[in-house]
Amino acid sequence: MTSAAPRRRGRPSHADSADAPAARDRILAAAREEFSERGYEKTSVRGIAKAAGVDSALVHHYFGTKEQVFEASIEVAFGPLLSAPGSIAEGPLDGVGERLTRFFFGVWENPATRKALLAIIRSAVNNEVAATVFRRLISAQILRRVAAQLDTPDAELRAELAAAQLVGIAMLRYVIKVEPLASANPEQIIERVAPVIQAHLTAHRL
Amino acid sequence: MTSAAPRRRGRPSHADSADAPAARDRILAAAREEFSERGYEKTSVRGIAKAAGVDSALVHHYFGTKEQVFEASIEVAFGPLLSAPGSIAEGPLDGVGERLTRFFFGVWENPATRKALLAIIRSAVNNEVAATVFRRLISAQILRRVAAQLDTPDAELRAELAAAQLVGIAMLRYVIKVEPLASANPEQIIERVAPVIQAHLTAHRL
Repeated sequence: MTSAAPRRRGRPSHADSADAPAARDRILAAAREEFSERGYEKTSVRGIAKAAGVDSALVHHYFGTKEQVFEASIEVAFGPLLSAPGSIAEGPLDGVGERLTRFFFGVWENPATRKALLAIIRSAVNNEVAATVFRRLISAQILRRVAAQLDTPDAELRAELAAAQLVGIAMLRYVIKVEPLASANPEQIIERVAPVIQAHLTAHRL
Repeated sequence: MTSAAPRRRGRPSHADSADAPAARDRILAAAREEFSERGYEKTSVRGIAKAAGVDSALVHHYFGTKEQVFEASIEVAFGPLLSAPGSIAEGPLDGVGERLTRFFFGVWENPATRKALLAIIRSAVNNEVAATVFRRLISAQILRRVAAQLDTPDAELRAELAAAQLVGIAMLRYVIKVEPLASANPEQIIERVAPVIQAHLTAHRL
């Protein structure tokens, strides 16, 4: 869907200068900021370019459409999971609940990745394009890798119910900020939630 | 916060006619429709009035501010829980997980209440006023009633983690629509989720 190469609208003169990586990173940071604060619909490529101090054409040059900027800006949040070789989804099934739960708090407690995740949630609930990106990331890239490790016929449903526990914590703790959950120590939550994730994922009956 | 009586901006001539209950219901239905489709920020009292076929002044007459219309329009979704005497939150602790999970699917599978719940979620993630309404409803009215039944020091945190499991299912099944969860039979989900809710709420170790 969005796998086509970014459209090139001419080539800004400074796009391939020594400054290019810095400009690219500034655009991604500005995009995360804009999408997380305003959601997908209210964010514009022009606004991202302005916040990054570059021309809109440079944003299009690096990333293509608004949808592609959105996708690139949030992939950083999934990068650690996708690149962690065998350590989370593909590690031994024993302990997968705690590894996933710790990974979840790792990305949410980190301000940079939290912005990307807030951008996804704020955007996906109100915009179908953003929801599609979210669906694709969550199902194709994460859930299926976890589900592939499970030796049960309803592996995908199990993986999604585990994901639902974590998505719900994200909603109540980081988006809606319901107390005492919003201020609770992550370790206190992990202690309660890791066994739930483990139970969802494995055939273990509660 | 929003407990003040609705402001009265004059009294529309037909406000207290025999047609009043019907007009009031039409306004609430239109408000649910508008808030669930567009979210809190993009919804206006004028738009609700237009959809209900009444004058904006009548909306203000019955409900007051936009925040108060929002609150009234979503309370219907919480009504069954709040008015169910002792049957869910205040019933015996044994089986509370299944009762809460069944209640959850009851309101989400019902098109009328689902609209109210979608309105809350779509609005609360992007608007602080709506988030405050959501926080107040979820914590003051539901979680505390459940938590009050639990005989543990971390009862509120437990109740919120249980709520997080259900909120996450709402996000993935009804808002983002991730498969296979979005199309799964509610009974199949209840079978897996009720024990998780029970485990969160009771001292039962997984």
